Amino acid sequence: MKPFVKADAPVWQVRRLLEPGPIVLLSSAFEGERNVMTLGWHMIMGFEPSLVGCYVWDQNHSHQMIRKSKVAVINVPTVEMASTVVDIGNCSGRDVDKFEKFGLTAEPGEQVSAPLIAECFASFECRLADARPIERYNLFVFEVVKAHVATSPRWPRTIHYRGDGVFMVSGENTSRWRKRFRPDMLDE
Amino acid sequence: MKPFVKADAPVWQVRRLLEPGPIVLLSSAFEGERNVMTLGWHMIMGFEPSLVGCYVWDQNHSHQMIRKSKVAVINVPTVEMASTVVDIGNCSGRDVDKFEKFGLTAEPGEQVSAPLIAECFASFECRLADARPIERYNLFVFEVVKAHVATSPRWPRTIHYRGDGVFMVSGENTSRWRKRFRPDMLDE
Repeated sequence: MKPFVKADAPVWQVRRLLEPGPIVLLSSAFEGERNVMTLGWHMIMGFEPSLVGCYVWDQNHSHQMIRKSKVAVINVPTVEMASTVVDIGNCSGRDVDKFEKFGLTAEPGEQVSAPLIAECFASFECRLADARPIERYNLFVFEVVKAHVATSPRWPRTIHYRGDGVFMVSGENTSRWRKRFRPDMLDE
Repeated sequence: MKPFVKADAPVWQVRRLLEPGPIVLLSSAFEGERNVMTLGWHMIMGFEPSLVGCYVWDQNHSHQMIRKSKVAVINVPTVEMASTVVDIGNCSGRDVDKFEKFGLTAEPGEQVSAPLIAECFASFECRLADARPIERYNLFVFEVVKAHVATSPRWPRTIHYRGDGVFMVSGENTSRWRKRFRPDMLDE
């Protein structure tokens, strides 16, 4: 896969890509090691600051790496990467360097030590904003501190997991109902 | 809209509909009043018990109703309801009975006092499992105690919000990559 050409985006705009619920790749680094995991359980939790909650099971190798480094990158893959996304979820960073194994291009973060995945449509650099919900819920509350988004196409075709090996692929993007919104609910 | 014919489903299967990230309608009831709100910020947080986290802003009328009644129903609308979904988000239960205003059929819950919306593809009856994350994050951690899912079609066409009046409509559902999954990651 060819890396996407990306531009900076306002951090509050991460909702445009994350709120529809795509599978993401969460990348991390700690003490010279790097890792990436497939993640389906996440949600927007605020705009200012730009907060995203991610569920990272404590059995995942990434859990301790992120807990200790306090940073991660949320990367949004497109449908063209679906096989790799599944394969990443099938193995553990305990055993392999997944960047090497799957030919992913690691780019350095500007704000965080975790690597970006160049082949993904977007990468959001995150700092752990609150470690308290981790113990009870494996919930990492991240603040997005830098957003990199592909300049084309306008919207990516993302994959959304239904469980049991079934994916929904994102369909049409439409402003058909935009005129019904109260003006204060729109961006401008 | 005609109500869907529904059957009971195992509560852990809510991921099949919620994990892809659709807009949902959250219905509630408290002291003779009922309400429904449009909600985009939610995530699966566990299977056993079946947990779903929902962000309900403290300015929403539903916030106090759910906090006090400790129950709610997560309803999954299809694209045919998109206009109504937007209109529900445009007004407040402080001013109107939205069930009446939008011609929604309220069905009694089996396990909870909040009403189901018959016109939605699925309805998940929820009990508030943990009130602690509400104060800091407006995060309601619900346990799904009963799941009602339409028997047809196999998968609904759901709407997924991108912000700024733009929706993504769910596309193809495919098992194309299922053979790549480790057997222990599938349901059986």
